[in-house]
Amino acid sequence: MKKFIKKRSGKTGMDPGSLVHIGNRNMDRTRISLIDYGDKDFSEKVIKKVEESLPFKERPTVTWLNVDGIHDIHVIEDVGKIFDIHPLILEDILNTDQRPKTEDFEKYIFIVLKMLSFDDEKKEINSEQVSIILGSNFVLSFQEKEGDVFEHVRERIRKSKGRIRKMGSDYLAYSLIDAVIDNYFLILEKVGEYIENLEDEVLKNPSPKTTEVLHEMKKEMLLLRKSVWPLRELLSGLLRSESPLISKNTNVYLRDVYDHTIQIIDTIENYRDMSAGLVDLYLSSISNRMNEVMKVLTIIATIFIPLTFVAGVYGMNFEYMPELEWWWGYYAVWILMISLGISMFFYFRKKKWL
Amino acid sequence: MKKFIKKRSGKTGMDPGSLVHIGNRNMDRTRISLIDYGDKDFSEKVIKKVEESLPFKERPTVTWLNVDGIHDIHVIEDVGKIFDIHPLILEDILNTDQRPKTEDFEKYIFIVLKMLSFDDEKKEINSEQVSIILGSNFVLSFQEKEGDVFEHVRERIRKSKGRIRKMGSDYLAYSLIDAVIDNYFLILEKVGEYIENLEDEVLKNPSPKTTEVLHEMKKEMLLLRKSVWPLRELLSGLLRSESPLISKNTNVYLRDVYDHTIQIIDTIENYRDMSAGLVDLYLSSISNRMNEVMKVLTIIATIFIPLTFVAGVYGMNFEYMPELEWWWGYYAVWILMISLGISMFFYFRKKKWL
Amino acid sequence: MKKFIKKRSGKTGMDPGSLVHIGNRNMDRTRISLIDYGDKDFSEKVIKKVEESLPFKERPTVTWLNVDGIHDIHVIEDVGKIFDIHPLILEDILNTDQRPKTEDFEKYIFIVLKMLSFDDEKKEINSEQVSIILGSNFVLSFQEKEGDVFEHVRERIRKSKGRIRKMGSDYLAYSLIDAVIDNYFLILEKVGEYIENLEDEVLKNPSPKTTEVLHEMKKEMLLLRKSVWPLRELLSGLLRSESPLISKNTNVYLRDVYDHTIQIIDTIENYRDMSAGLVDLYLSSISNRMNEVMKVLTIIATIFIPLTFVAGVYGMNFEYMPELEWWWGYYAVWILMISLGISMFFYFRKKKWL
Amino acid sequence: MKKFIKKRSGKTGMDPGSLVHIGNRNMDRTRISLIDYGDKDFSEKVIKKVEESLPFKERPTVTWLNVDGIHDIHVIEDVGKIFDIHPLILEDILNTDQRPKTEDFEKYIFIVLKMLSFDDEKKEINSEQVSIILGSNFVLSFQEKEGDVFEHVRERIRKSKGRIRKMGSDYLAYSLIDAVIDNYFLILEKVGEYIENLEDEVLKNPSPKTTEVLHEMKKEMLLLRKSVWPLRELLSGLLRSESPLISKNTNVYLRDVYDHTIQIIDTIENYRDMSAGLVDLYLSSISNRMNEVMKVLTIIATIFIPLTFVAGVYGMNFEYMPELEWWWGYYAVWILMISLGISMFFYFRKKKWL
Amino acid sequence: MKKFIKKRSGKTGMDPGSLVHIGNRNMDRTRISLIDYGDKDFSEKVIKKVEESLPFKERPTVTWLNVDGIHDIHVIEDVGKIFDIHPLILEDILNTDQRPKTEDFEKYIFIVLKMLSFDDEKKEINSEQVSIILGSNFVLSFQEKEGDVFEHVRERIRKSKGRIRKMGSDYLAYSLIDAVIDNYFLILEKVGEYIENLEDEVLKNPSPKTTEVLHEMKKEMLLLRKSVWPLRELLSGLLRSESPLISKNTNVYLRDVYDHTIQIIDTIENYRDMSAGLVDLYLSSISNRMNEVMKVLTIIATIFIPLTFVAGVYGMNFEYMPELEWWWGYYAVWILMISLGISMFFYFRKKKWL
Repeated sequence: MKKFIKKRSGKTGMDPGSLVHIGNRNMDRTRISLIDYGDKDFSEKVIKKVEESLPFKERPTVTWLNVDGIHDIHVIEDVGKIFDIHPLILEDILNTDQRPKTEDFEKYIFIVLKMLSFDDEKKEINSEQVSIILGSNFVLSFQEKEGDVFEHVRERIRKSKGRIRKMGSDYLAYSLIDAVIDNYFLILEKVGEYIENLEDEVLKNPSPKTTEVLHEMKKEMLLLRKSVWPLRELLSGLLRSESPLISKNTNVYLRDVYDHTIQIIDTIENYRDMSAGLVDLYLSSISNRMNEVMKVLTIIATIFIPLTFVAGVYGMNFEYMPELEWWWGYYAVWILMISLGISMFFYFRKKKWL
Repeated sequence: MKKFIKKRSGKTGMDPGSLVHIGNRNMDRTRISLIDYGDKDFSEKVIKKVEESLPFKERPTVTWLNVDGIHDIHVIEDVGKIFDIHPLILEDILNTDQRPKTEDFEKYIFIVLKMLSFDDEKKEINSEQVSIILGSNFVLSFQEKEGDVFEHVRERIRKSKGRIRKMGSDYLAYSLIDAVIDNYFLILEKVGEYIENLEDEVLKNPSPKTTEVLHEMKKEMLLLRKSVWPLRELLSGLLRSESPLISKNTNVYLRDVYDHTIQIIDTIENYRDMSAGLVDLYLSSISNRMNEVMKVLTIIATIFIPLTFVAGVYGMNFEYMPELEWWWGYYAVWILMISLGISMFFYFRKKKWL
Repeated sequence: MKKFIKKRSGKTGMDPGSLVHIGNRNMDRTRISLIDYGDKDFSEKVIKKVEESLPFKERPTVTWLNVDGIHDIHVIEDVGKIFDIHPLILEDILNTDQRPKTEDFEKYIFIVLKMLSFDDEKKEINSEQVSIILGSNFVLSFQEKEGDVFEHVRERIRKSKGRIRKMGSDYLAYSLIDAVIDNYFLILEKVGEYIENLEDEVLKNPSPKTTEVLHEMKKEMLLLRKSVWPLRELLSGLLRSESPLISKNTNVYLRDVYDHTIQIIDTIENYRDMSAGLVDLYLSSISNRMNEVMKVLTIIATIFIPLTFVAGVYGMNFEYMPELEWWWGYYAVWILMISLGISMFFYFRKKKWL
Repeated sequence: MKKFIKKRSGKTGMDPGSLVHIGNRNMDRTRISLIDYGDKDFSEKVIKKVEESLPFKERPTVTWLNVDGIHDIHVIEDVGKIFDIHPLILEDILNTDQRPKTEDFEKYIFIVLKMLSFDDEKKEINSEQVSIILGSNFVLSFQEKEGDVFEHVRERIRKSKGRIRKMGSDYLAYSLIDAVIDNYFLILEKVGEYIENLEDEVLKNPSPKTTEVLHEMKKEMLLLRKSVWPLRELLSGLLRSESPLISKNTNVYLRDVYDHTIQIIDTIENYRDMSAGLVDLYLSSISNRMNEVMKVLTIIATIFIPLTFVAGVYGMNFEYMPELEWWWGYYAVWILMISLGISMFFYFRKKKWL
Repeated sequence: MKKFIKKRSGKTGMDPGSLVHIGNRNMDRTRISLIDYGDKDFSEKVIKKVEESLPFKERPTVTWLNVDGIHDIHVIEDVGKIFDIHPLILEDILNTDQRPKTEDFEKYIFIVLKMLSFDDEKKEINSEQVSIILGSNFVLSFQEKEGDVFEHVRERIRKSKGRIRKMGSDYLAYSLIDAVIDNYFLILEKVGEYIENLEDEVLKNPSPKTTEVLHEMKKEMLLLRKSVWPLRELLSGLLRSESPLISKNTNVYLRDVYDHTIQIIDTIENYRDMSAGLVDLYLSSISNRMNEVMKVLTIIATIFIPLTFVAGVYGMNFEYMPELEWWWGYYAVWILMISLGISMFFYFRKKKWL
């Protein structure tokens, strides 16, 4: 259940906008990295205090401040002061139990996403919150822990590959969203393989344990949906937004991410249908097995119970039982019993039980 | 069923706007408390008669009148007279079977919410109705019984913590709504734990009793939904409202509560899916157990019925049965029976029944 | 099935607007009562011919003509002529198989509702059609049979209780709708109790008969839904209507009825979910019982089949069976059989079958 | 499956607007009948060539050309030329696999409907396509085979009954649509009776055959839905249409048909729910029977297996078995066995198996 | 699972608009064919380099460039350069895992479709991506492999059959879309037959294997839906588009394709309902069989277990058992047993088990 709602009891009754970290502490120290670039300029450094970013902020070039690890409230507070962010947003960044959403605060746009990873061993999906703030010449991004999904973007900026250096902060924000969402395809591939394996197991070797695994998978699917469904609304919000922060040029790219999101949602819905199908398959598989067990029992019982009865009859101790004295009695009984057995056998054949 | 509809038979045929209390009487005496505050002023007192609030009402400062216990119709009537409230609203306040909703009466906005609590022992959710009336410089709140969920708000006003003293009555109303909705997260945490425990029970130790518990849980889920779903509409109504009573500044905060509501609804839907999953899990668990029982029966019967038949054959009393006279006949029969048993054993092995 | 569609074969091929009564004849003679009132005036009488209402119609006071029993086509035709009603509406009044709806004909508004009653003995819901025509200074109402649900309204008019005498025909129409819908809460209470009893029966004493009862209840639920769902549309239609016939003052009251309708629909949906839950409960209850039966069978068979085999072995008539001659053979066999039985017993204990 | 999609393989790759008949040939010769009427004029004849309708078309009176049998492409082509119809519409008329729809081509409105009939013997619903083209002073109708559903309309025109002779072509088109949709109520009555019979069968005498029948019924329901659901859209399209071809007067009548359609759809949905309920009822009926079978087996086995064991014990041939020599041994065993049987009987009583 | 998502891992982290082929390589060499036509002109050739199309592009006649095989990135890149296509579109053409969609880029409209084929042997549906770009005087089409579905269109252009030569590039694009969607009816026919066969199998000869086949079919249905549902949106997008590229004349034809799409979607939904019905049918079929097996077992056991008990009683070796000495004892026992058997037989008759 922990996956569906995080403990926030400590926060009850606080003033809205109070900064409290909700979630797990995923790394020791908060790491702040700063990239500042224009068509020609480029500088990158790891900074210790948020204040160090002040000179870059003033410049017309795009400033990207990335914070890994959000448990340190003071860092978030500093970012809030320097970039003039509304306290409710800071609260949302710290609360890792957010639903993906976007909010337009005129001077900047706030975006929350979920980054997913698939734990191959435990066969479960873990999710990490990524918050992005898009301002006119800066982008702030917050991750729960260091990850390399943004490394590709950094690489493109460094090497001045592609369009990224020529376009504004909105294109950078788009690139970050794209990086997160592109990663979902990897998760889906893995989940797809996992479902395929489960399918094999259900068809070839279903055990009571399988029920449990199917149940777990359904819960993972719920988590996946929970992270992905709101993305549709998020992106269509950005697309329809009339904020001057998003240029028409970038809109084409956002439409592309939107399409990816629709495709991801489609695939997840298909997976859900397929896992529901697996549960059905499992149940009819159990029924089939029960049926088979029943048939074996019935065949054995139906053949031998009458025969045992016959044997029982001639085991009676009546003084006057003429058959017992016929020398061919015993053989006749055998013949009777064998022909009873054989006719039963053909009866089951006819009924297609054998 | 009592949870889904309250007895209102006594009211049939009355004039609309007739004041009749529908619900349980939860406390002995109605308790009216009054807080009046501005940026600098602050006074708080418990009053006996609603009239005592008249001088405060006239002042430009924010007046918050909180009524605990709504069974006393005269108190509600007095509030209605003094604050000039439409009789239909008074009727709604008294009828604790309301659906959460908001209504805009130009001079004031009427809001009904449900406050939930989780009874840890009976494992059931209880709900209490909270009505809020937001006027231009006053807020009226009505609770079924004394509770401490508003205490945090009172504390913030008293200590002049946060923004609350600097903002108007709309921010106070928001704070009350926020307090009620924040409390839902606690309920969800508890319900989540409860589902987790049930899941354990279904997997490890399902009994016929479990069915009943699952059924009860599904009913609790319905109650939870009933209280929470209308909140979405309620809050989006407030957000889209063009009432001058709600300032733009407060709107940002209402959007925050709206996000919380969406998240709560999401979580409840996930819980519902999970409890549906639990019922499936329980059913396939029963099937698996039945299967196991059947296998045991079949194995025993399939091994011993043929053996009993063999024993029966040599228990027959025919006079001429050559095997009976062979000295090794008895041993041969044992060998036959043991090998029959062993081959059955391997047959079941092959079928994976053992 | 009769509840879901009424025989209208006789009508096929007729001109639209042809007056044919579809439904059951519920009373012998049509009864027409007329109330005419203003703030100060009031007169009430039972009339024999519709023409008698002509003088009242001309007056500015509110005229309420109530027709109990609609099988007499001539009465309806007369009403149509005198109050100038479109033939299609007359047709709808006569056809008691209408779906609740409202239609705005500029000069008047036509409203169809279903009045429900719960037959405590047969445990079924009966429905009766109520048609209301709201004109600028008159209200026409048509019921299938005499009923007392409008008596409260009459009483309020007579005794000049509440606002009713001071307001126009729209408030009267609202009062009639309110009376019909208020009555639904009584039905819901009874249905709720009925479901609760069924729940008890399913949990404590399920029998094959229960299936049938559950099936009947599901059908009653369908009927309930069919009557209630369209009310939402009906009332939101009236609320959004820009007809001058409905004053702004009355709109507040209609909003109140609208809220009741939403609540009734919510409750019905909850009942439906609960009855679906009952069916599941019943099925898992059957499964549990089957499981129990199987266990008893398996325990008995598993204990005694091997013992019977042992007894069978020593019932064989081989001439050379050394055990038979040992004096302690018989006792040994008993010990063997008892210890076999006891170990089986502990095996079942371990498996939690006992 | 043939009911859900018709073979159109022969048409693949053809130019859009190519005239190919898709469907069954339902009658030998195409029959063209023509009625021309105004308030006072009236003429009716059966024509051989479409050209014969030319003089009527020019006149201001309403011309109704009805074509029974649409397999003759040339007739359709001629109609197209003379009344100036778009080839895509001609293609749609010929393709009897259309979905009910309406299309507004400014000069005329094209309407496709499905006429249903219920085959009482095979218990299946057959559908026939009816196409209607409404022009400013003409109506063209096309049926797959001669039928009498339009006969009532013809009769009304002939006898100048009702409004029909005084109104324009739009009223005629409405009358035809009304005739088709009115006919659905007959089908629903029959389907309702059929479901009721099935219900009886499921409750009183379910057999494996019943499954098959239920499955067939579900398929019929799908077909019914397929024909009826699009009607809603069709009629609301006509109602909202701003085409000058439909007068405001006729709109009132279309609203009436629209209401009928909603009612038909409601009823079909209820039927669907009821047939889903029947499947559940059948399944729990099977489960109940299985349970009963199991109980009988268990009672018999549980009573006799222990008794047989006792008998087996005293059938053993040990030389030293003291009980055998007691003269009252045999009677004691009988008493033992009878009391065992009786206690079993009371045990089952207590368990409510008997 | 491979059908629901294609491996795109190699692409992660690339710049948006990077050209990478995602999908299988379906043919050896890319084949580019070019048709250029006007009302009177017509030329057709297979070209090796995209540049060869340059002279045609300049001309006012319609130029249709068809590319079979899209694995050669350079060809796509060349097309992009020459016709000035946005890199994101080129990326989408190469990624064969697109969802059907349409995008309006002012100068041209981009359309992605799925072409389906039904593998009769494996009973599975294969899908191929078809991309179409509609410019003011050109149409570009891209297929994964050579196919003949466009051959009919080519033929019509060559032979100047139908309207195609007189209309613009939008009509050509429409013709291509129509060709693809017309083909779906063939697939639906085959799928329909396949479901019909399965239905027969389930009714007449269900085996555990059938479960698997039903599961596979459900997966195929998901794939079908995935390809077809987005078409609705796609076509309504084209219909509502205000792009000057689509003339009003062509719109009528697009509406026709739209209708086909709706019909295809309807049919698929019906198929889905029917396959869900098949799973139910299969399950109740298994239950029925189990029931039958149980009955056979119960009949045999219930008849013979008591008889065996009787035989067992008279097989006891008590010294004093008076019946054994009666000369008619043996016959009496036979009579007893036979009458027991016969009464059992009638009991089962009464219970309708025989």
